[in-house]
Amino acid sequence: MSNTGDDMDTRVLEADDAYDGADIYAEDGSVRSDYLMHVGAAIADRDVLYLRQHVARLHASEMGDLLEAINPEQRRAMVSLLGDAFDLSALTEVDEAIRMDIVEHLPNEQIAAALGEMDSDDAVYILEDMDQEDQEAILAKLPFTERVRLRRSLDYPESTAGRRMQTEFVAVPPFWTVGQTIDYMREDTELPESFTQIFVIDPTFRLLGTIDLDRILRTKRSVKIESIMRETNHPVPAEMDQEEAAQVFEQYNLLSAAVVDENQRLVGVLTIDDVVDVIQEEAEEDIMRLGGVGDEELSDSVLDTSRSRVVWLMVNLFTAMLAASVIGLFDKAIEHIVALAVLMPIVAGMGGNAGSQTMTVTVRALATRDLDIHNAFRVIRREAGVGLINGALFGLLIGLAAGTWFQSADIGGIIATAMLINMIAAALAGIFIPLLLDKFGADPAVSSAVFVTTVTDVTGFFAFLGLATWWFGIH
Amino acid sequence: MSNTGDDMDTRVLEADDAYDGADIYAEDGSVRSDYLMHVGAAIADRDVLYLRQHVARLHASEMGDLLEAINPEQRRAMVSLLGDAFDLSALTEVDEAIRMDIVEHLPNEQIAAALGEMDSDDAVYILEDMDQEDQEAILAKLPFTERVRLRRSLDYPESTAGRRMQTEFVAVPPFWTVGQTIDYMREDTELPESFTQIFVIDPTFRLLGTIDLDRILRTKRSVKIESIMRETNHPVPAEMDQEEAAQVFEQYNLLSAAVVDENQRLVGVLTIDDVVDVIQEEAEEDIMRLGGVGDEELSDSVLDTSRSRVVWLMVNLFTAMLAASVIGLFDKAIEHIVALAVLMPIVAGMGGNAGSQTMTVTVRALATRDLDIHNAFRVIRREAGVGLINGALFGLLIGLAAGTWFQSADIGGIIATAMLINMIAAALAGIFIPLLLDKFGADPAVSSAVFVTTVTDVTGFFAFLGLATWWFGIH
Repeated sequence: MSNTGDDMDTRVLEADDAYDGADIYAEDGSVRSDYLMHVGAAIADRDVLYLRQHVARLHASEMGDLLEAINPEQRRAMVSLLGDAFDLSALTEVDEAIRMDIVEHLPNEQIAAALGEMDSDDAVYILEDMDQEDQEAILAKLPFTERVRLRRSLDYPESTAGRRMQTEFVAVPPFWTVGQTIDYMREDTELPESFTQIFVIDPTFRLLGTIDLDRILRTKRSVKIESIMRETNHPVPAEMDQEEAAQVFEQYNLLSAAVVDENQRLVGVLTIDDVVDVIQEEAEEDIMRLGGVGDEELSDSVLDTSRSRVVWLMVNLFTAMLAASVIGLFDKAIEHIVALAVLMPIVAGMGGNAGSQTMTVTVRALATRDLDIHNAFRVIRREAGVGLINGALFGLLIGLAAGTWFQSADIGGIIATAMLINMIAAALAGIFIPLLLDKFGADPAVSSAVFVTTVTDVTGFFAFLGLATWWFGIH
Repeated sequence: MSNTGDDMDTRVLEADDAYDGADIYAEDGSVRSDYLMHVGAAIADRDVLYLRQHVARLHASEMGDLLEAINPEQRRAMVSLLGDAFDLSALTEVDEAIRMDIVEHLPNEQIAAALGEMDSDDAVYILEDMDQEDQEAILAKLPFTERVRLRRSLDYPESTAGRRMQTEFVAVPPFWTVGQTIDYMREDTELPESFTQIFVIDPTFRLLGTIDLDRILRTKRSVKIESIMRETNHPVPAEMDQEEAAQVFEQYNLLSAAVVDENQRLVGVLTIDDVVDVIQEEAEEDIMRLGGVGDEELSDSVLDTSRSRVVWLMVNLFTAMLAASVIGLFDKAIEHIVALAVLMPIVAGMGGNAGSQTMTVTVRALATRDLDIHNAFRVIRREAGVGLINGALFGLLIGLAAGTWFQSADIGGIIATAMLINMIAAALAGIFIPLLLDKFGADPAVSSAVFVTTVTDVTGFFAFLGLATWWFGIH
């Protein structure tokens, strides 16, 4: 999220400086054990000199990995030993639980001082999870302009472009020349830490256009800004959801985009690094939801984790009992032919697997907007076809296997037919359930799996046991 | 991947020009039906003028969405009607199947001419999936330097930084001044279409450093390049896997990175937009694999899709039969007490769900490198704890429910115990199976689910039916 390494220029080179930079990692990407040992020893010895030399100079993301690798006591001790040398932007790279823990143990003065030097998007990232009281206490210690800027971002709802934006940007009037613009950038000391684009605004801060830096560098000094600016480069409304903003970035391959308020006035800039984080969070969310897990983090406690997983398991308990009650309808059949009890989970399970294949593809295609009204019918037809073909194939296979196992052509035929029926039901459930959930504004990733499994369990048990009851004439 | 919109400057504004730009989309992000109707009519009427005015000017990614929304016949007709006005970079935005179909229907001359004008990474993206023969025929039609450049990228293995890089970049010697550099950029007409960073090289093209454009703009003309360059900005070896390269970008929040050969010579530049694609592909892959689906695309045919899903279903058929044979061991118990057959899928199913929760978290944490040797033990302990707590909770619930349902405290006690056992087994399987697969170099996303379900099915049936057999003394 920030300092890409200007601090590296001044890195002191020493004979045993082997832990600087990328060298803190072992081959598998985890932090090297011997490095952790050295750091651990330095913390135990309160060896501030070692920590300043070998830890304080790490890149923010490396520091983040280090903080995640050591235990909570070491973490707090290290941060306190480093004092002002601890770069708070490392907090944007760690789990929320770790971030909160460190922030709680730091004096508000130190946090305020550090936030004042950070890009506003990083500062907001650290502030937003704090409780109201701490947030206010820290904001109060900041200079007026900083405070106003951060408040403005914090006023936008969570997960909006306004909350994620950086409020530092370079803006110039349209009548300036390229030469004037370059001179301004050479002299102004309040420029953002890094930028790839400048904005053109009118006196009321209304956005007129944008210019990429390479365009400025390629243009003669005498040329007017307004003649090289692009009139619109997809300004993002501050209230826009961050996910939608990420889609604008992806669609138009943007590196940064102007964020505007409801009057089209420039209020900030959204940059690709934040968008990459959003894209990852979204994909992460889909994976977790499909697996029946909420927003948990690896550092959550046992109790928090159990609690967050209970809801999903509870829902599944009800659907499992529903499926069981379907089996209960056919207890006579099972009493007569125990083979049915042995085989029935195969029919239900295979349906579940086929259904979750179709569902995965559907949920993902909806998330990436590859599936829409124009191709939905084609995809439904395709999935039904796949269900038919694989249903016939696996029906045949299990029919032969079960028929041989229990020496009964009748049972072979019954399970083959039930398998075919359930695979088709699975395909249809796998596509229609996410489509319908999406249509009615629910997130298909969250609840599709329950519904699909319910359909395949109920259909599987009902088709198999029902066919057997009918065929063998059991009452 | 390319032209961020310079072509938009010259957009003709007309009264009914309502379909230009972002307006081709409906609220849900799909292409507007009335726009599709107009385009369809224009294709049917061979109305080249309409197509040139309302279609040819779309942004590459909008054109991609349009190509995906119309049917194959319309697609081919439209591309042929547009002729040279069709911007081939739209092909980097569509499914592989659609790309191949369009490329096959275009004359090699037109493809060669278009590739010559494209950034090399886009050109390689289109070339790489073609068969050897077509690829050679098209390369042969390109000017010498272009051909050499594209061949160099194509020589690197698929999914490496070398294959994904752009071979156009700006490089200057260290002894130049900022002024000289700016003058060079103002005069050279062969610069890449857009860039955010320039490179500093020695006469043998060895990489000495990099400078972000904002740094150049902030620096006085007389300053020497070598005094403002950053000595290393994480150069990426050309042979590095794209996934690893993406991790370097994420770790250090890069916008672009130099790609170097084995002698540290600069051969190209990897940019964040390609990296965003890689990040998305990787997350996509994990989702698909966890759902038991391979590299399928929405445009694949019914037969291709069934075939690609058969392997996973086949594996699951075997594990389902394994679980069934465990039930078969206890056929006597089921014959005596049919309630066991009714209840057994609940025990197995709940274990499967709990196991897949743990597994999802583990697989994802391994992919993002959040889980490693330093915290594995803590996470294992946590998951075991969660299994114990949720096992006790749901054991109690189902014990009460089943005991009431079948009016038998014995059955309630048996199912409660079996549930507890299976939930703990599920937690352990959910964490140990992905960890072991990862340890032995297998992709945990691909095969964890099968093993976890096998463990929870077998344990569930065995624990429940075994306990019942023992408790009721059935022989």
